[in-house]
Amino acid sequence: MTARVYRKTMKIGLCGFGVVGQGVWKHLNQRRRELDKRLGVSLEIARIAVRDPAKERKLPLPRKLVTTDPFSIAVDPEIPIVCELMGGTDVAREITLTALRAGKIVVTANKALLSEFGPEIFEAARTGGGHILFEASVGGGIPIIKALREGLVANRFRLIYGILNGTCNYILTRMENEDLNYTDVLADAKRLGYAEADESLDVDGWDSAHKASILAFLAHGTWVRLEDIGVDGIRRISPSDFAFARSFGLRIKLLSVIARNFESNDLSVSVRPMLLPERLVLANVNEVYNGICVAGDVVGTTLYIGRGAGQDATASAVIGDLADAALVLLGGKSPLLPDDAPSIVSGEEDRLRITLPENQESRFYLRLTVKDASGVLARVSASMASNRVSIASVLQSESDLPDCASLILTTHRTNEKAIQDTANDLKAMSVVVEDPVLLQIAEFED
Amino acid sequence: MTARVYRKTMKIGLCGFGVVGQGVWKHLNQRRRELDKRLGVSLEIARIAVRDPAKERKLPLPRKLVTTDPFSIAVDPEIPIVCELMGGTDVAREITLTALRAGKIVVTANKALLSEFGPEIFEAARTGGGHILFEASVGGGIPIIKALREGLVANRFRLIYGILNGTCNYILTRMENEDLNYTDVLADAKRLGYAEADESLDVDGWDSAHKASILAFLAHGTWVRLEDIGVDGIRRISPSDFAFARSFGLRIKLLSVIARNFESNDLSVSVRPMLLPERLVLANVNEVYNGICVAGDVVGTTLYIGRGAGQDATASAVIGDLADAALVLLGGKSPLLPDDAPSIVSGEEDRLRITLPENQESRFYLRLTVKDASGVLARVSASMASNRVSIASVLQSESDLPDCASLILTTHRTNEKAIQDTANDLKAMSVVVEDPVLLQIAEFED
Repeated sequence: MTARVYRKTMKIGLCGFGVVGQGVWKHLNQRRRELDKRLGVSLEIARIAVRDPAKERKLPLPRKLVTTDPFSIAVDPEIPIVCELMGGTDVAREITLTALRAGKIVVTANKALLSEFGPEIFEAARTGGGHILFEASVGGGIPIIKALREGLVANRFRLIYGILNGTCNYILTRMENEDLNYTDVLADAKRLGYAEADESLDVDGWDSAHKASILAFLAHGTWVRLEDIGVDGIRRISPSDFAFARSFGLRIKLLSVIARNFESNDLSVSVRPMLLPERLVLANVNEVYNGICVAGDVVGTTLYIGRGAGQDATASAVIGDLADAALVLLGGKSPLLPDDAPSIVSGEEDRLRITLPENQESRFYLRLTVKDASGVLARVSASMASNRVSIASVLQSESDLPDCASLILTTHRTNEKAIQDTANDLKAMSVVVEDPVLLQIAEFED
Repeated sequence: MTARVYRKTMKIGLCGFGVVGQGVWKHLNQRRRELDKRLGVSLEIARIAVRDPAKERKLPLPRKLVTTDPFSIAVDPEIPIVCELMGGTDVAREITLTALRAGKIVVTANKALLSEFGPEIFEAARTGGGHILFEASVGGGIPIIKALREGLVANRFRLIYGILNGTCNYILTRMENEDLNYTDVLADAKRLGYAEADESLDVDGWDSAHKASILAFLAHGTWVRLEDIGVDGIRRISPSDFAFARSFGLRIKLLSVIARNFESNDLSVSVRPMLLPERLVLANVNEVYNGICVAGDVVGTTLYIGRGAGQDATASAVIGDLADAALVLLGGKSPLLPDDAPSIVSGEEDRLRITLPENQESRFYLRLTVKDASGVLARVSASMASNRVSIASVLQSESDLPDCASLILTTHRTNEKAIQDTANDLKAMSVVVEDPVLLQIAEFED
């Protein structure tokens, strides 16, 4: 056993000093004594790169450490750990690739970067001898990356699904509990800092899709392209959808689903608002919390819940990665094997097929606002029949709009292409006065 | 970066080939190709020690590997990883200490061993240069040990509580859902293999106490002695307790609670049947599932759910540890730092005080079966007053026993000693015809 060297210092270069960067600075300094003792080495933030040092920040910038050139950190031989918390996929990508090619460890919370440039980034780590750690990229402070990559290494994953976006879950929870409109809750969420000024990345499902692709990579060793993920958001959901859901003991959640069929070797990834039975634990994960359900073939079903975002939860995950980075450097071998991850499905990569969204099958809920005239239901059902979508139930009720009715249809299992074609056909009909609302009906037990 | 040596073999000695041992053998062999590729080294079970090779087993014993002498494995220089799955605290302790003192890595699922001999075992690892990995000892296949030790390393833990015993949770769930008696469900559980022939370790709370002490060690670096843990089981709970709970929107769960007060530096550990609001996620963790709620000061509240026991879930955790063991050996440095764990509360160990059960405060539920005579309630309340236990509510109803009544009392906050003294006083009264049933009333949010 090697002797303990408590006073050795391991330098971290922090790129970005925004909300998460300040959280890491604050909590790392607060926990310093305990972490140093536990690691046998001192983690020290030695440089901080920011674009604008004059910008007003909640925490004062430690002036002595500041640079405006993040590349000076990425290439500095004295700094073995680069913590990329700038966001964006432009400079962040260059910094990440430069550091990895120099054999450094990059710790990042940047899900968009990983999702869009995963193959390039992992290749840079492989060829440069660097490592990339990204616990903070999915599920906030929940150690889900570590669970999938290390704790559950004995398993193959038939199904992973979960609530991966705290903003959407906050909006849906308040709409449900307080019978509010989407736009009203969104405005509140922005005021409270739970939603960005431009909310589209969250509410249209793309942030969830980025995270789902990272989980799919960890579980199946393949980067699914964003265009191969079926993505739908929550903008069009209204109180009437919640009223329907409530009357059938269902909840509405934006769920990311990663389903692998090991017999046919198919993999499908989707992000959609879904109806799910309220008795499921995941249906009761509310507010800004995330919840991820992982079905392994050995362990069975495991479930992980925690705050999905925010300064502190994200900082917790980043600091966990920084500690791992220190251990990797002390040991000379990664305990995490990101560069080996693509080979999890050893020998099967060539045959792994991505099930495109249009071929993913499920049951659906379709809500239409139609003119209250005779023959409308006949036209709607004819359109569905022509797309080979089979109706399971119909519920007609009054609409808030004058001279209109609300039609809620549920379907038997159908594929995404058929239901999308149906929705488009219906949208084009003169008797359909609003864009149809489409929810997937969950069919899993947890 | 070092070159990959795929064909290198890392030998494992398996001590014990019972339910869990067979699970590890089966799943390790099934996952071999993928694991080898991921680890860059081949994990091979090279020896198996069993007490009786002739014993009938579900899986045939691989004869070539068998020995009846586990010590031959513990001292074999060719075997760097010893997987102790014998159970018990006698031979298992000797094997574990011998292997650790020889600098080996011991992977174990033995919570009783760790809980009773933790300080000795970790000292042996420290002095011998070995490591001990024990993911399977708590929470079955849930990677909770890894989460506490690595993923959440940035946190201090104010509160950890959870359902740690699947047998008790199975019994309580069926009692609640089917309005059944404890003894009937216990008999069923034995038939189905969910309870041991001797159920006392589970139903009296000791298995939960073992696990709670391991979590307390990981979170706070101190081994709490079993006699300093307030332990109560589920034998005396009856359908009438569930009826009361139901009418107030409560559930009954056997909960382990590890509470740390960082201001006063107190630590308390308890295992008790508790009433908790049904809206809490943990109240909805049913059947053989375990659920653990971890409140960190940085990450906030995180929650982990999964199968708490069984061949496959336990094997998943053991194999995760075997993979970690291989990485430790490849890197020469533990990523897990079990030998540093005692220093988590660096500098504070001396001052950390254990709050003994008699000083732990809470609200309580007390059910009494009393003779249906005048003056009984007066005598009961006088006894409580003399012990300084303040009554919050009283509910009197008919009892199943002839000429008896059921009295359900809830108390304001009181300490464990006062409520135990009260229960003992009441038990001695001639008008009290059955032992009082005592449940703690949960006061945490999750």
